[in-house]
Amino acid sequence: MALIVQKYGGTSVGSVERIKAVAQRVHRTREAGHDVVVVVSAMGHTTDELIDLARRVTDRPDDRELDMLLTTGEQVSIALLTMALQARGCPAVSLTGWQAGITTEAVHGRARILSIDTARVRRELEQGKVVVVAGFQGVTPDGEIATLGRGGSDTTAVALAAALGADRCDIYTDVAGVYSADPRVVPTARKLDVITYDEMLELAALGAGVLHPRAVECAKKHKVVLTVRSSFTEEEGTWVKEVADMEQGQVVRGVAQDKNVARVTAVGLPNKPDTLAALFTILAEANINVDIIIQNAYDDARISVSFSVAGEDLPRTLEVLTKHRDRFGFASLMSEEGLAKVSIVGAGMVSNPGVAAAMFRTLSEQGIPIKMVSTSEIKVSCVVPQADAERAVRALHTAFQLDAAERVTVHG
Amino acid sequence: MALIVQKYGGTSVGSVERIKAVAQRVHRTREAGHDVVVVVSAMGHTTDELIDLARRVTDRPDDRELDMLLTTGEQVSIALLTMALQARGCPAVSLTGWQAGITTEAVHGRARILSIDTARVRRELEQGKVVVVAGFQGVTPDGEIATLGRGGSDTTAVALAAALGADRCDIYTDVAGVYSADPRVVPTARKLDVITYDEMLELAALGAGVLHPRAVECAKKHKVVLTVRSSFTEEEGTWVKEVADMEQGQVVRGVAQDKNVARVTAVGLPNKPDTLAALFTILAEANINVDIIIQNAYDDARISVSFSVAGEDLPRTLEVLTKHRDRFGFASLMSEEGLAKVSIVGAGMVSNPGVAAAMFRTLSEQGIPIKMVSTSEIKVSCVVPQADAERAVRALHTAFQLDAAERVTVHG
Repeated sequence: MALIVQKYGGTSVGSVERIKAVAQRVHRTREAGHDVVVVVSAMGHTTDELIDLARRVTDRPDDRELDMLLTTGEQVSIALLTMALQARGCPAVSLTGWQAGITTEAVHGRARILSIDTARVRRELEQGKVVVVAGFQGVTPDGEIATLGRGGSDTTAVALAAALGADRCDIYTDVAGVYSADPRVVPTARKLDVITYDEMLELAALGAGVLHPRAVECAKKHKVVLTVRSSFTEEEGTWVKEVADMEQGQVVRGVAQDKNVARVTAVGLPNKPDTLAALFTILAEANINVDIIIQNAYDDARISVSFSVAGEDLPRTLEVLTKHRDRFGFASLMSEEGLAKVSIVGAGMVSNPGVAAAMFRTLSEQGIPIKMVSTSEIKVSCVVPQADAERAVRALHTAFQLDAAERVTVHG
Repeated sequence: MALIVQKYGGTSVGSVERIKAVAQRVHRTREAGHDVVVVVSAMGHTTDELIDLARRVTDRPDDRELDMLLTTGEQVSIALLTMALQARGCPAVSLTGWQAGITTEAVHGRARILSIDTARVRRELEQGKVVVVAGFQGVTPDGEIATLGRGGSDTTAVALAAALGADRCDIYTDVAGVYSADPRVVPTARKLDVITYDEMLELAALGAGVLHPRAVECAKKHKVVLTVRSSFTEEEGTWVKEVADMEQGQVVRGVAQDKNVARVTAVGLPNKPDTLAALFTILAEANINVDIIIQNAYDDARISVSFSVAGEDLPRTLEVLTKHRDRFGFASLMSEEGLAKVSIVGAGMVSNPGVAAAMFRTLSEQGIPIKMVSTSEIKVSCVVPQADAERAVRALHTAFQLDAAERVTVHG
């Protein structure tokens, strides 16, 4: 008998029929003798529809009011799932974020969880109930409703699992697990049985999309054992934990891509100690996420800095930099759109100096130009033209011997 | 400068365009220098749609979970209306029932308000904001979300007005005020400028439909001055207050009807002191609302009792009585469906003994049979065949000189 947290995403509860299917799955886990806490997202495209409704009212909806609006989506899901469980004869109770004791920072739209008071959840579990908690939401110390931002329901599930000391946190989604590459791009992609937090973190951050990086970070910090699995099949998913049992000799575990990247280069900046700090502080203040940063020194007086941003942030990035041109005194500003980032990930990479070279060679053989390079202990990323990205992913998948013998089936 | 509570029903906030129109009206009141608290219902048919969703999950949704589900409707409205106010440059903040300090009984689906802690609302008003409160909802002392039942938003508005000591509570709806009769039935119906709480209570309870009786009761108890008016026009509405300035000599102020009534007669009950008490206790325990009750004594040993119930409660009423037949020992049970209750209402009626006689005469002249009669200090009700009800209302409206010189226009 274990305590299991299960999280079901929007597609998994996208209709009344799907909610009933989820209820069956939850009930089965309960019947097996486990305590179950379920975290659910809003049904299907509810969140997007609510955002659309807000935009029809005003171009710039207030963050607090947007949170007030969006949190209704999960509240509908928890009520319906609880009703479906009760209809099956499974005792259950729904809890909003504030009822579940989830306290967040006093910000809206992207609050972090500060603490979870598990008293109410534990009391309901002790009464033999399945506890159905609204994902993505919490309450600030002032009693304001706040949301955790995109991927917030994953974070709710992992944080609840950590606070409750759960034996496992199962993330149910519309794919069967974590793959060595996106199966829509690489037909021979394999589902991984097990993966480390760090590998998952790189894959999540690089756009593998099955699990939000914040949730993985939280799981790693609190050593919550995760599984990622499909709510549509009975297939075994992927385990995410501290030390993965390494598959024989496989240094690279997965290939990921981030499809919409732009590169900005500021040429001829003064070579002063605070130049970089000032530059990236201004971008951070404008809420622009910078990914890869490369600095070249031309001579003692001047440097050039290139960095990558999300494609949609490019216009604003150029606007901000141009506004501060006098302050930095760069000679020119160059930018390139239509790029993508392709990455290979694997925890064993750190002890294997030839991996980056093998990656460059593979791309070179395919005639794919490399625009930027970035490395960490467990990944190597190359920025390449968007049009070449999928070909790059497939070539790397084959080159690093990730191809499965058979084609895998992906559900969703 | 006054403190005004405004309540907007579902039709008034039925679309994004309507919400913007309501925002304009609220903003105008604010600009006139008043403090404004706004109570809103769920948009249009949202509540019915959510109930339908629940019924697709299960035939018997749990009351607690239904409250969890339904309260999202008002939460969406308050967020959108607040955004619309802010977009106009009017500072505003939305509050759910629990944020607005509305504590209810620990029941679901039809909770009564126990108390309102106005601290948060007052704090927001002091900061110059319009406070937009979700109607129909509150929180139980245990922190459970509860709804007030149908008409609950009216009650929220009046209770808030009472707790805040508001100067006025304006109920905005899709008709221009309280009429001397339903203008769809009586084309010559007149809008009343002013009406007493008791008159409104009788009219509300008798199916006039513009204002929920609970809200009127609450207003009477706390002496909250109400107005009922249209959110679609600029027309002056109807004032509801303790003493109405009587229009010259008009004893009867309005004619109302309750369209679906059934009559049940239990014949030959033993004439014992506890018979009636036992009979109506059993019906009350089965949650059957009994309206008119008439007792006839045939002889010293036997009595006959007739009473009216809502048409939809008839099958259950007969079922309950038949089950307890042995206990009461009545000779036979008779029932008649397809009836309606037609009532004349007016606070001046108590000092005017000829009113009931005039009503019976009018119905008699129309050849309309009277099945039951009930009187109170301010109304006379007759149960008549459903098919004759509208004709009866029109005839009574004319007989009591309520017809307006011109045809009134009703919006909605």
